[in-house]
Amino acid sequence: MSTNARGQKDSGPEPLGQAVSGPDGLGHALPGTVYLVGAGPGDPDLLTLKAHRLLSSCDALVYDSLVPRALLDLVPEGCECHFVGKRRSHHSVPQRTTNAVLVELAQRHRCIVRLKGGDPFLFGRGGEEAAHLVKQGVAVQVVPGVTAGIAAPAYAGIPVTHRRAGSSVTFVTGHEEIDKGRPGVDWRGLARSSDGLVIYMGLHNLPQICAELMAGGLTGSTPAAVVQQGTVTGQRQLITTLADLAERVEAEGFGSPAIVVIGAVVAERIPQCAPEPALVEMPIPF
Amino acid sequence: MSTNARGQKDSGPEPLGQAVSGPDGLGHALPGTVYLVGAGPGDPDLLTLKAHRLLSSCDALVYDSLVPRALLDLVPEGCECHFVGKRRSHHSVPQRTTNAVLVELAQRHRCIVRLKGGDPFLFGRGGEEAAHLVKQGVAVQVVPGVTAGIAAPAYAGIPVTHRRAGSSVTFVTGHEEIDKGRPGVDWRGLARSSDGLVIYMGLHNLPQICAELMAGGLTGSTPAAVVQQGTVTGQRQLITTLADLAERVEAEGFGSPAIVVIGAVVAERIPQCAPEPALVEMPIPF
Repeated sequence: MSTNARGQKDSGPEPLGQAVSGPDGLGHALPGTVYLVGAGPGDPDLLTLKAHRLLSSCDALVYDSLVPRALLDLVPEGCECHFVGKRRSHHSVPQRTTNAVLVELAQRHRCIVRLKGGDPFLFGRGGEEAAHLVKQGVAVQVVPGVTAGIAAPAYAGIPVTHRRAGSSVTFVTGHEEIDKGRPGVDWRGLARSSDGLVIYMGLHNLPQICAELMAGGLTGSTPAAVVQQGTVTGQRQLITTLADLAERVEAEGFGSPAIVVIGAVVAERIPQCAPEPALVEMPIPF
Repeated sequence: MSTNARGQKDSGPEPLGQAVSGPDGLGHALPGTVYLVGAGPGDPDLLTLKAHRLLSSCDALVYDSLVPRALLDLVPEGCECHFVGKRRSHHSVPQRTTNAVLVELAQRHRCIVRLKGGDPFLFGRGGEEAAHLVKQGVAVQVVPGVTAGIAAPAYAGIPVTHRRAGSSVTFVTGHEEIDKGRPGVDWRGLARSSDGLVIYMGLHNLPQICAELMAGGLTGSTPAAVVQQGTVTGQRQLITTLADLAERVEAEGFGSPAIVVIGAVVAERIPQCAPEPALVEMPIPF
């Protein structure tokens, strides 16, 4: 069955604070809508118009570490703000708590922004939060953003695809989850079949990832890059080869957040076209 | 060697109309800067703040079909506009002509916007244009945008990654180039190694792509989706299986522009979180 946008016929304007039926079927209305908003990679200039408007008018904000404070300053005075920061080995706020915070806020506010670094639907867990909110009878809407996997390389002059460098690019997380509820990444297979790789959260496992990619057939001379703090203050990058990547990342003290790019596209780098990083700091310390 | 942003020490503000040295080394200055601007997927609300500001203040605009007219209306009165539209089998303006137009405009204007649908560095040929401009001594800067491969699925409620659906997603072009200056896509290999696929310009070769993916090991029951006119007027989608995808796309008359998503993520779809498409039309007819 083909359907229009939301699988339903009504396509009127979006009201803020949409009435919805609760999961108990009694049709009680929660006043609020939760917007899962992509904040982009850090540079506030890469915020979308929609994200900017929602931030400037929201009643409540839920955010984590991967956004700069400059974005938080956009919210109106009196906006209720909740930090639900997470970083590797610092799971200060579990996902179920974040979910509960969002549901609770939707009972008291009209417009709730759940701000996420990058795009909510690409390694942002937006799908999980959206599914939970729908189940709880909360109106929810996703607002796509510029993902760090495209923008951080761009701020180093690296295109993630190029005609001379193939027809595909794979976005992959290098972060080993603690709960192994899913299959691991097939690094050797990706080495053979994808023309380029953009690795999110890949620094911790980088030696192992590089070894697997070379075992899969990529030569040690394959161009490779790391962009740390992409698009914001402190941005720095390393342009090297796959063989040297892990050692140099370690030796030169690269740390998270960082995006790793591996493949012939790195050799198509045009440093002159890279924008200046924004004068804002990210991540938010906690 | 690690370097800062542009591989140089100066990190002052960006002047419009930056003086640059020409390729003859005589240091003659061209007045203009060409901004390779991502227009996003179509919905004007997904334009970045930076793209909006550049469009609102540029002296010249070079655009193609994959942007809505609503964005063109943002440019100041008197802005010199050039259409360099391209669509499959309608290469009305060759790339070398576009390149020449940009160089020529940089000799006469300060701020030139080269507007591209989606993101300039993901299947946008931005790398090629940037390299050409640098070679010609023209100042150039990339402005990342929201790519259709993330936003079109989002407007159908489909996250492109999900913890339950793996750790990787491959963005791949299904468009066979006329000049085969590069290797073809390894569809069978991608079927085996990538957890999800987002295919740009894939409708024309869809029967062959689906056959290759199944030959590579994906079962016919693998969830699949097509989103046509994603984020704008006329958006419609098809949720089906890999086995039925090509036949139904043909039977139901789906056409370009469209994004195809294949993989378990399609089953994680949350239709309720999809935004309404914007009331603008795209592509620009020609």
